[in-house]
Amino acid sequence: MSAPAKAPVDSLRELRSLLPADAVLSGPEIGEEYSHDESLTEPARVPDAVVLPETPGQISQVIGWARERRVAVTPRGSGTGLAGGATPRSGGIVMSLQRMNSILEVDPANGVAVVQAGVTLCALDEELAGHGLMYAVYPGEMSATIGGNIATNAGGMRAVRHGVTRHNVLGVQAVLGTGVVIRSGGKYVKVSSGYDLAQLLIGSEGTLGVVTEAILKLIPRPAASATVLAPFAGLNRAGDAASALLARHAPSVLEYLDRMSMAGILASESLSVSIPSGIADAAGAYLLVMLDDCTDERLAQTVESVGTVLDGCGALDVYVLPAQVAANLIRARERAFFAAKAAGAGDIIDVVVPRAQMPAFLDRVEEIAAGAQTMVVGCGHIGDGNVHLSVFQQDPATLTQVVAKIYAAGRALDGAVSGEHGIGTAKMRYFLEHTETANVDVQRHIKAVFDPGGILNPGALFPAVMPA
Amino acid sequence: MSAPAKAPVDSLRELRSLLPADAVLSGPEIGEEYSHDESLTEPARVPDAVVLPETPGQISQVIGWARERRVAVTPRGSGTGLAGGATPRSGGIVMSLQRMNSILEVDPANGVAVVQAGVTLCALDEELAGHGLMYAVYPGEMSATIGGNIATNAGGMRAVRHGVTRHNVLGVQAVLGTGVVIRSGGKYVKVSSGYDLAQLLIGSEGTLGVVTEAILKLIPRPAASATVLAPFAGLNRAGDAASALLARHAPSVLEYLDRMSMAGILASESLSVSIPSGIADAAGAYLLVMLDDCTDERLAQTVESVGTVLDGCGALDVYVLPAQVAANLIRARERAFFAAKAAGAGDIIDVVVPRAQMPAFLDRVEEIAAGAQTMVVGCGHIGDGNVHLSVFQQDPATLTQVVAKIYAAGRALDGAVSGEHGIGTAKMRYFLEHTETANVDVQRHIKAVFDPGGILNPGALFPAVMPA
Repeated sequence: MSAPAKAPVDSLRELRSLLPADAVLSGPEIGEEYSHDESLTEPARVPDAVVLPETPGQISQVIGWARERRVAVTPRGSGTGLAGGATPRSGGIVMSLQRMNSILEVDPANGVAVVQAGVTLCALDEELAGHGLMYAVYPGEMSATIGGNIATNAGGMRAVRHGVTRHNVLGVQAVLGTGVVIRSGGKYVKVSSGYDLAQLLIGSEGTLGVVTEAILKLIPRPAASATVLAPFAGLNRAGDAASALLARHAPSVLEYLDRMSMAGILASESLSVSIPSGIADAAGAYLLVMLDDCTDERLAQTVESVGTVLDGCGALDVYVLPAQVAANLIRARERAFFAAKAAGAGDIIDVVVPRAQMPAFLDRVEEIAAGAQTMVVGCGHIGDGNVHLSVFQQDPATLTQVVAKIYAAGRALDGAVSGEHGIGTAKMRYFLEHTETANVDVQRHIKAVFDPGGILNPGALFPAVMPA
Repeated sequence: MSAPAKAPVDSLRELRSLLPADAVLSGPEIGEEYSHDESLTEPARVPDAVVLPETPGQISQVIGWARERRVAVTPRGSGTGLAGGATPRSGGIVMSLQRMNSILEVDPANGVAVVQAGVTLCALDEELAGHGLMYAVYPGEMSATIGGNIATNAGGMRAVRHGVTRHNVLGVQAVLGTGVVIRSGGKYVKVSSGYDLAQLLIGSEGTLGVVTEAILKLIPRPAASATVLAPFAGLNRAGDAASALLARHAPSVLEYLDRMSMAGILASESLSVSIPSGIADAAGAYLLVMLDDCTDERLAQTVESVGTVLDGCGALDVYVLPAQVAANLIRARERAFFAAKAAGAGDIIDVVVPRAQMPAFLDRVEEIAAGAQTMVVGCGHIGDGNVHLSVFQQDPATLTQVVAKIYAAGRALDGAVSGEHGIGTAKMRYFLEHTETANVDVQRHIKAVFDPGGILNPGALFPAVMPA
């Protein structure tokens, strides 16, 4: 391990010998996109090379090379992550799964699909639509890959009904940091046959292995859907309404948007939801509810019942949105991050708290923001206690202080640092501060089992054990 | 590690000094029940002592003692397991969680309960009924504990709708084989903040740590339920009907029983389901379907629609069972294992296969059984591809051959050794044969991280690394 690394040029020649001719990019061939993900805080870094493997065998070879040469390997899907998890290390390489993008099998009889990790949610959904099926995880960014979703245990809007990535991925194939290829899981939900390594790899942000293939659980596409929008005077009322809804119904989407988020996404997408100005002026928060059912008739009953619940919880009004308006609004909600980014947000936080603590958490966030002359705008998955806060503050030191206080507020309410974006490199500090040392120690020992050379995504989750 | 163990009497004195006076049983104080679980094949072994800790701190102390003295520790819930996972080692101790049986919190606002590992499903359900809530995992044996359910990632009848234990346990506290206490997870479904150690502990059969506490996801109790029973000429037809049902509906229970299983459980519980003898004579297999809905009116629509699907798939008839008959039949189905045991079954198999492979699997089982003059009776979770086969064969050698062939048949159809009962000591051989070496190697390294002395449930999943 202490042998000096070879000169980069020699190493690159070796690397090229392991892969097809066009599968190693270096120098000017490396597109700008490979130097970063969508994190607002992590600096871009150009890797020494980008590799585009097509098989687990090639990945294994590259990992063997990297381990011997002590070269950092940053696995990458579409680079839509928000925590620096796909930001390369200086002197390291990026391993893009973009060429491993085949849908290997759609198996309606078993309710599963088998896909390569580089398949995008968009390509998958297009294919599944033809079968009347869907993959329930819906983080919004449809250009994201299944591999990226697995890396961060992606959640999204439908998690309130259908769970997160770990509930919808039944098995994986992965190349570990030892170069060894393993499979775990299968075309079944129920299994009790040893440790579930697939579940351990899900959410490990490319630090344990490179996931190459996944078995995904599929469900029937809903026959009938409706979208309901309800403005409330404030978040507390909206929070109570969300709880009341979940006690009686199983909405497929249950989002909240604060007044500023709603205004921002409507403006950035040039949308209107036709809410009378008197009500819009009085609205401090909105609930956005999607309902699915198996027939139009049953859906209509559900919508009526949901309307009654919202009404009883103080909704200023309840709007059943026309299909096109609903689709536009959901798409705009998906793109809330880009609206915030364009407006100059300095950081994005996706703390998760027990869902009933959401109002207390947001009250505390408001206090923190007001005390630091900082604008914090929120929207997110209220049914899951998972909010996305965009923090607007020009002064870097104040920004850091505000962000640290918000993480501390989440922790004080028994929350976790990230609900779905992951820790990456951006939130390592908070992750290590907020997680018991005994737990982190076990995680680092597990990392050493899977990746003894410390070459896989060093600096994500834990401090790198290899030279930077 | 190679120091000779102290004499048992000295060791026991030390052990007693770590716990309250009445919390260490030895000699004649050890009840017969502590020498085994419900496995049909694993020999009973009386442990040197049974400890009844009341706190994680006491568990940690006992583990420290056991590690120093190289004593095997077998964690135990209610001992309802079917794979020898709670069968003690000679010279070892049993650690029963029976005194850690408090429901610490029911938190309806967050839809969770926090319970100690020794809480039984029965006690939990009684408490939750008062809140209009339920814990969805329903393995049938209500005297089982939450800790035992976590150990085996218990599934049960409602898994087809609500998933298995790992989908319904949001967090755990556990004492690892190092004596260290960790917490992982929280009162939220969505989290992406490091490796999910709770998910790794779930299904690890007491080989990594002793789970002491769990955060459980709760759901509203259904407002209206109905149970439908449909006889079919054979399993192939019933299998097609199950697939057709799952493509359109989300039953909360979807079980099949073969002709012999149905006869056996009706006889052993002195039940009748009032099926005309002409139809009963023609029936080779039954589907048992439970449907939940939020109103009686909607339920009636669902029942009608399900009846139409079953009819279209060749049901000989469709019976909506009166509530009491349904409850009796479900209870009898729960107790199918005991009926099989009483009738002299030599082994119980719970292979899981991709659900559409179930008819092919059972055809193969029939061939194997016929070829060895062996009776194999089946019932189980057809919606999950998880069957329970009771194998009746007096000759031990033939029994072993038949069982081995059935496991091989499951493997050939991309199945796994156990869907929900676990590997324990009884199925280690098949687990090791059927799992890729690379995967098992990683599992054993993980075991070494959590339990470096190899004292926790040695001989379950993997060969013991400590003296027997």
